[in-house]
Amino acid sequence: MANVFLPKGTRDLMPGTMNRRLMVINTVREVFARYGFEPLETPAFERIETLTGKYGDEGEKLMFRILKRGEGGKKGQVDLGLRYDLTVPLARVMAMNPGIPLPFKRSQIQPVWRADRPQRGRFREFYQCDVDTIGSDSPLADAECIAVVHDALTALGLSNFTIRVNHIHLLQALAEAIGAKDKQTGMLQALDKLDKVGRDGVEKELLDRDFSQDQVDRLWNYIDGAEIPGAAEAEAHLKTIIGLALDMGVDPNRMQVDRTLARGLDYYTGPVFETVLHGDYSGSISGGGRYDGLIGMFSGKASVPAVGVSLGIERIFMLMEEMGLVPTSATSVQVWATVFSDDTRSATLEAAAKLRTAGIRVQVSTRVGKLGRQFKDANAKGVPFAMVCGPDEAAAGTVVIKNLTTGEQITGTPEKLALELGS
Amino acid sequence: MANVFLPKGTRDLMPGTMNRRLMVINTVREVFARYGFEPLETPAFERIETLTGKYGDEGEKLMFRILKRGEGGKKGQVDLGLRYDLTVPLARVMAMNPGIPLPFKRSQIQPVWRADRPQRGRFREFYQCDVDTIGSDSPLADAECIAVVHDALTALGLSNFTIRVNHIHLLQALAEAIGAKDKQTGMLQALDKLDKVGRDGVEKELLDRDFSQDQVDRLWNYIDGAEIPGAAEAEAHLKTIIGLALDMGVDPNRMQVDRTLARGLDYYTGPVFETVLHGDYSGSISGGGRYDGLIGMFSGKASVPAVGVSLGIERIFMLMEEMGLVPTSATSVQVWATVFSDDTRSATLEAAAKLRTAGIRVQVSTRVGKLGRQFKDANAKGVPFAMVCGPDEAAAGTVVIKNLTTGEQITGTPEKLALELGS
Repeated sequence: MANVFLPKGTRDLMPGTMNRRLMVINTVREVFARYGFEPLETPAFERIETLTGKYGDEGEKLMFRILKRGEGGKKGQVDLGLRYDLTVPLARVMAMNPGIPLPFKRSQIQPVWRADRPQRGRFREFYQCDVDTIGSDSPLADAECIAVVHDALTALGLSNFTIRVNHIHLLQALAEAIGAKDKQTGMLQALDKLDKVGRDGVEKELLDRDFSQDQVDRLWNYIDGAEIPGAAEAEAHLKTIIGLALDMGVDPNRMQVDRTLARGLDYYTGPVFETVLHGDYSGSISGGGRYDGLIGMFSGKASVPAVGVSLGIERIFMLMEEMGLVPTSATSVQVWATVFSDDTRSATLEAAAKLRTAGIRVQVSTRVGKLGRQFKDANAKGVPFAMVCGPDEAAAGTVVIKNLTTGEQITGTPEKLALELGS
Repeated sequence: MANVFLPKGTRDLMPGTMNRRLMVINTVREVFARYGFEPLETPAFERIETLTGKYGDEGEKLMFRILKRGEGGKKGQVDLGLRYDLTVPLARVMAMNPGIPLPFKRSQIQPVWRADRPQRGRFREFYQCDVDTIGSDSPLADAECIAVVHDALTALGLSNFTIRVNHIHLLQALAEAIGAKDKQTGMLQALDKLDKVGRDGVEKELLDRDFSQDQVDRLWNYIDGAEIPGAAEAEAHLKTIIGLALDMGVDPNRMQVDRTLARGLDYYTGPVFETVLHGDYSGSISGGGRYDGLIGMFSGKASVPAVGVSLGIERIFMLMEEMGLVPTSATSVQVWATVFSDDTRSATLEAAAKLRTAGIRVQVSTRVGKLGRQFKDANAKGVPFAMVCGPDEAAAGTVVIKNLTTGEQITGTPEKLALELGS
């Protein structure tokens, strides 16, 4: 045992954890499908040529590379790399399937691998969860990104969130309006920290970045609502999107245009989104936007309409546990079927089968007799109910279901008790 | 585009395929959970030391190896390998979690990677689907392997199958009874081909392997039912297991003891199982057995009770399609919401939201006007119904749902029509 370890930065997802994760995944998948975002899976690895040059120097360093099999591998040649995100594979899928009906709307929930330095809650294998619409520049597609995040979070039981919406053109107009067209990226990097460091902090960073006090003052003035020259079209675009999202049923209190929402100019080309949680569990849990310049990377097209959002699914898994929105039990087994004696085993198994047919999750004890010991097993596993089928019950075609927390017992046919347990 | 390929032997799982796969996976996962087999996921890669020496020469050749990041990688050093099966990771999990309550019952449905020569229907990335009970030598655990396969296949709509059951000790006694104790493996390898080559073929192979005609004749005699010396205990064990499986509700016509069922002596240590389909889609779709000698590989224990079965899930995915047991549609979207004009867009989106709330999957057209074109889009995607909300409907709070195959139309509130569509 001393020599057995997990690879650095990885973890096993044990049954209790997996039950919660599958609950979350199934919920968001269903929401996605109701909007026509259907699941796609791509291989865990891509040809190394497909990945190289797509993720910057950082990405090259953190990528897991696979040796060629056979002779090439002995020479240290690499031909494959593990999936680093879900966008490059999507671009490859689009290039390889030019006849696919557009718009192509897909969801993808799969792990990606990055050899980051492991930290609390950060792993080298982690799930990403993306929905994207490729091939439509309709504001409907942008509005659906808002609606699908709104509905998914709501379906998960989260309510204390705001979906912030902004527009890359508005941010560009803002930079121009304060005479900082050449320092756009610096302005965005500073603004991006607003939540963490407040206006004073941003102001300090801007001054450090050689913005003048006058520029900073004008910036706050625009952010506080003054009309930004040249931003009218972007403003109207956002207004349309917000209107469509409202028509789709998005709660107006959960969404707002926010001129301070900064996202990468090298990536996004239109509306941008970010969802933040408030209160004790504050932080960003979703981001996205329109990125018309990326999906054509393999097909040689400079622009392919594309808009999407990522749910921070690993963070959501953690939050759901911390906020008590998912059962914390280590098991989803509802009934521990004890075996009273060899003579009652058949009756016990038949009763267990009836509970299962009614949808109840039943684990049958592999011990026989000494019920106290069997109740202990159930408790150790976190199973809430025990079933007992002694000689009297076996003769009567009934069983006893015992609540292992309260000690309360009810007797009846398995069919009848299944209804009680299921409700 | 010319330069974009998938890695050899891999595939993208497009939405239509994924919908079918998820349907199958969710069905079997639910059956597993009803028996207390709960989901486990392990990382895609393991430390190379964990994998090395576990899969024979063939495995070493077919394994995908990952280069060290940083300086080590430049020297061609390997520190990780992609998951090759689900059993070695399970043994590692058991060694790393010595305090886990036993029996530990888990299901695991994850891809594995093998650099096999790609063939029709065989890929280098493919899903495996295992259920195992670790830490119990109770025949109940063996019987559950039968029951869970029976229930899973039945839940998927398959019925033309037989679960064959045999016992390694019975096979050993059989070899000894015909005086071929030293040629056990050869006997099993020949017997394993019975389905394909018939008795004549097996006989020929046995004679080629230096079995005498007398040995072959005695073999058939035992297989046809003569009492095998020294096999009484194994026979009794099988009888117990079959009895337990019957108590659990397994159809007696779907299960049989089969003395010809051969499985690896180097792997299995007790009862063995194989499930075959009959008829047009004949072949093996599940296999397993007791393998008490493997799970201790990392903990230094010679014997840890372990029994499990694998569902051939990739083959089952294919069969479900070929047999028409899953929808063949490329999409699960039920309703294509057309947009009649800009003026009716709000009413359309509100109606779509109501259908979604009622559980219907609705894709809203990104086009406006020219309904014929929008119906064509719906057809191209394989969506069965279109929704139309013109000015009259918008005013009345109703929509029209048109069956795109029959042309039939019904008008009503979205809430009412959702009930019709859902049924």
